[in-house]
Amino acid sequence: MAQQHLDPTDPAAGEVTGDALAAYLRAQATEFLRALRLHRETGGHTAAGGAEESVDAARLLRRSARRISGSLHTFRPLLDADWSEEMRQELAWLSGTLGLEHAYEARLERLLLALHRLSGATVLPAHAVDVVAAGSRAAGAAPAPLKAALENTGGPANVTATAERGNLTVGAAKAGALLERQLTLARTRAHSTALQALGSSRFHAVADKVAVLASEVPLAPAASTTDLRPPAAAAEERLTAAIAALPLVTAGHPYNAEALVHGLSPDPAPHPQDGPWHQVRLLLRLHRYAQEALHGGNIPVDVRLLAAGRALNRHRDASEAAAAAAQAARTPRIAPATAYALGVLHADQRHEVEAARFAFQQAWQKRTVGTP
Amino acid sequence: MAQQHLDPTDPAAGEVTGDALAAYLRAQATEFLRALRLHRETGGHTAAGGAEESVDAARLLRRSARRISGSLHTFRPLLDADWSEEMRQELAWLSGTLGLEHAYEARLERLLLALHRLSGATVLPAHAVDVVAAGSRAAGAAPAPLKAALENTGGPANVTATAERGNLTVGAAKAGALLERQLTLARTRAHSTALQALGSSRFHAVADKVAVLASEVPLAPAASTTDLRPPAAAAEERLTAAIAALPLVTAGHPYNAEALVHGLSPDPAPHPQDGPWHQVRLLLRLHRYAQEALHGGNIPVDVRLLAAGRALNRHRDASEAAAAAAQAARTPRIAPATAYALGVLHADQRHEVEAARFAFQQAWQKRTVGTP
Repeated sequence: MAQQHLDPTDPAAGEVTGDALAAYLRAQATEFLRALRLHRETGGHTAAGGAEESVDAARLLRRSARRISGSLHTFRPLLDADWSEEMRQELAWLSGTLGLEHAYEARLERLLLALHRLSGATVLPAHAVDVVAAGSRAAGAAPAPLKAALENTGGPANVTATAERGNLTVGAAKAGALLERQLTLARTRAHSTALQALGSSRFHAVADKVAVLASEVPLAPAASTTDLRPPAAAAEERLTAAIAALPLVTAGHPYNAEALVHGLSPDPAPHPQDGPWHQVRLLLRLHRYAQEALHGGNIPVDVRLLAAGRALNRHRDASEAAAAAAQAARTPRIAPATAYALGVLHADQRHEVEAARFAFQQAWQKRTVGTP
Repeated sequence: MAQQHLDPTDPAAGEVTGDALAAYLRAQATEFLRALRLHRETGGHTAAGGAEESVDAARLLRRSARRISGSLHTFRPLLDADWSEEMRQELAWLSGTLGLEHAYEARLERLLLALHRLSGATVLPAHAVDVVAAGSRAAGAAPAPLKAALENTGGPANVTATAERGNLTVGAAKAGALLERQLTLARTRAHSTALQALGSSRFHAVADKVAVLASEVPLAPAASTTDLRPPAAAAEERLTAAIAALPLVTAGHPYNAEALVHGLSPDPAPHPQDGPWHQVRLLLRLHRYAQEALHGGNIPVDVRLLAAGRALNRHRDASEAAAAAAQAARTPRIAPATAYALGVLHADQRHEVEAARFAFQQAWQKRTVGTP
């Protein structure tokens, strides 16, 4: 389906030039400014009432920053080179800084829910179970009700009470408390860093540039008559090449037990086998943003591409959660029961990594088969 | 395929009566006596040279004991009731007593191999890897070379050396050493118990009865004109009913994460969810033995039935190995790193349990679809 839009030899397809790219960038810059205004209105901190809106504002800021940055990368030849390069660096810094707080929060939620599941706990209220079932939804989906649900069951707030009510073992409860301490500390630090960043002159300079971009895109000479489709096709080719290099045959065999190999390896670094999958996740995004730029607001929803993207988000989340469990197990002087629970949790999340690869393989195969 | 042999209304099928059952029981009794002779010749203990033959002899003894006992159960109405009941009890005692030593040994091998795999160790010699690849073969396959392979890599014999050569972490090495201590002790006790049993007057009484059975089967009156097929069909019906009650829809969804639910539950009992699968494993055996009795030596190999049986053996082995890892983690005063490794190992084996259920579902679906 994507192929037919991208084929530059197709005479039926209308010309899509740098003007379309400029329109897309202006729209994303406007989104960025709207999110920034929302963020300032809600106070930008987690004090009474404004927490959820503030999280949404940060998410929207990152959303448009990623799209601008991705478009600058894919359509580099159509844009002023120096401006483009500097802008991308600054947006990457901003995205990274704003994303950490949410990442730590989501990781803790994922790990505490897994501990509940592994304990056979049945006390989660129905809406929390719904959130778990929809766990592979696009990032940012409903973190607040989930957090509330965990707090209702005594999750992060009172792990000992959970141990009684939720049938958690001492080990699982202690593991949960340890993870909560460590990831809440990390989240708090990330929050402060994000607040500092948003108040910095560096951030104000980025915001000013985006404000200019909202009305005036620095296109390269001749860009308004240059076809967008070849660079977009190149982005898709980079994606398909990276996917072709993935071990998809193995991933397509359920229970191949690949993801947990090295689970007890002495190497404390994140699993190197995860790298190529993380890379594909980024390339899939770039491909998606390139399609958005090509089609303006009229991009048809490609459910298979969405499913593939969701699987890769789940892969990334599980990979990082597994690493956090392994990291927590290295805390000095923990009880053996705590360490045991963290070991089970680590393996469970690596199992999730494997499941996500399988889901990606299934989604991608369908897509290839379905393309005429 | 099995259906057409079992259909008692099929006029084309030759009559199969109690005489065929008597022939089958005589043949199995003869096998039992041969295995017993082999066992006595090889000394029945693990002293120099005779160990492997002794293991084989015990395996053959159990093999024929299971077949005699299973046939007595399935074809009860065709046999002398009192004799049959007593014989079954004594054979069950013998099978259970002789099987424990091998079970502990196989469990230790499975867990040590898993620890190697989880550590990303690459030092196992090629023939050990072959054994791992064929790990779901019928029980009793080549335990000796596998053990030798593990010893070559310092596996059970020298875990510290393995930690260096095999890239094991301290936790994995200590977990391996702990499991080796506990399961070797259990195995040694089982070995003594088996030796005592084989020297007991109770055993000699069983052996005498089997010797009589080898020439004279105590059939019930009219058994030599009674059709074997209805009781064999009933055995198959018990199997299909038990399989119909299994959660096969869930099992057929890869990565359903069911097997690890309750992985951190405070209940120290073996996973109750495994029970129905263990039961199907026994019923599948009874069905197979009933087919053997019906068809004499001419039973066609049903590869799908074999695959289903192998999946259920793997399910049982992984379930028991996971329980052994959890049990070892309850040892007082172990290091956190040891407990962590045991947690990863437990989850890995529960993952194997889930994989075995998936393999069973796949094998069984094929069988049903393939039946005309």
